[in-house]
Amino acid sequence: MKIIPKYFEDFELGFSFETKPTLISKEEIIDFASKYDPQLFHLDEEKAKDGPFGQLTSSGFMTLGKSFTQIFMTGIFDGTSMGAWGIDELRWTKPVYPGDNLKTKVEVIETKKSSKNPKKGTVRLQHTVTNDGNEVVMTWISNQMLKTR
Amino acid sequence: MKIIPKYFEDFELGFSFETKPTLISKEEIIDFASKYDPQLFHLDEEKAKDGPFGQLTSSGFMTLGKSFTQIFMTGIFDGTSMGAWGIDELRWTKPVYPGDNLKTKVEVIETKKSSKNPKKGTVRLQHTVTNDGNEVVMTWISNQMLKTR
Repeated sequence: MKIIPKYFEDFELGFSFETKPTLISKEEIIDFASKYDPQLFHLDEEKAKDGPFGQLTSSGFMTLGKSFTQIFMTGIFDGTSMGAWGIDELRWTKPVYPGDNLKTKVEVIETKKSSKNPKKGTVRLQHTVTNDGNEVVMTWISNQMLKTR
Repeated sequence: MKIIPKYFEDFELGFSFETKPTLISKEEIIDFASKYDPQLFHLDEEKAKDGPFGQLTSSGFMTLGKSFTQIFMTGIFDGTSMGAWGIDELRWTKPVYPGDNLKTKVEVIETKKSSKNPKKGTVRLQHTVTNDGNEVVMTWISNQMLKTR
């Protein structure tokens, strides 16, 4: 799905869309973990067997980056994103395993124009990330800044 | 600073520590962005000049992973971490630029033993990430699960 870039005013409450799935590979889990989350259950397939999940799992930070990238690749923020100022209520609800294909549903839950800068506004987006079995593996709310028209 | 691994019971309210600094390089910003946050102001030095920050900046997701890794490398969670179930109130308060050296202060703000599993508990940690000029660039609260003794 390719979405036309949206400005602040285009984000109406309740508007939602879903991304394409993205594959979580074992190689990428290990590579990411070596740089950004070197816990053994993300880094070492053998040692992960004795860890809290009984096998290798994706770093939650990687799951977050993979989810965001799928959203960005829809084109919805192309040229209109001004970055984000924060995330609220990020929850890792199920482990993410090698071979999982994750997709993200995004829903507009709040919009607020900047009181200081008329050229920007914040859109609060609720994200729900699911695996092949439609289990929810992660949820998060972003506070995304967007250009106004 | 190398810290002895801590179990749930070892995290007392108000206990705090600070990590070593970690360098944010231009090459790493671009490499990370290409995989996990492909916005032009994280990905392309030239095009970033026309972006919201006027220059290349680190993906907030990368800043998060770099901060966590510095904490983990202190050794405090070695063999005692059971993963985290979430993050609250993540705020990107200032841009992070190539060449910045970031350190993280961690403070215990809440502890709660699991009501279901006596072998684990959650420690809520407040993180404050600062740059060379002691400006706060990111704050976040993690909900970290730890083994009990």
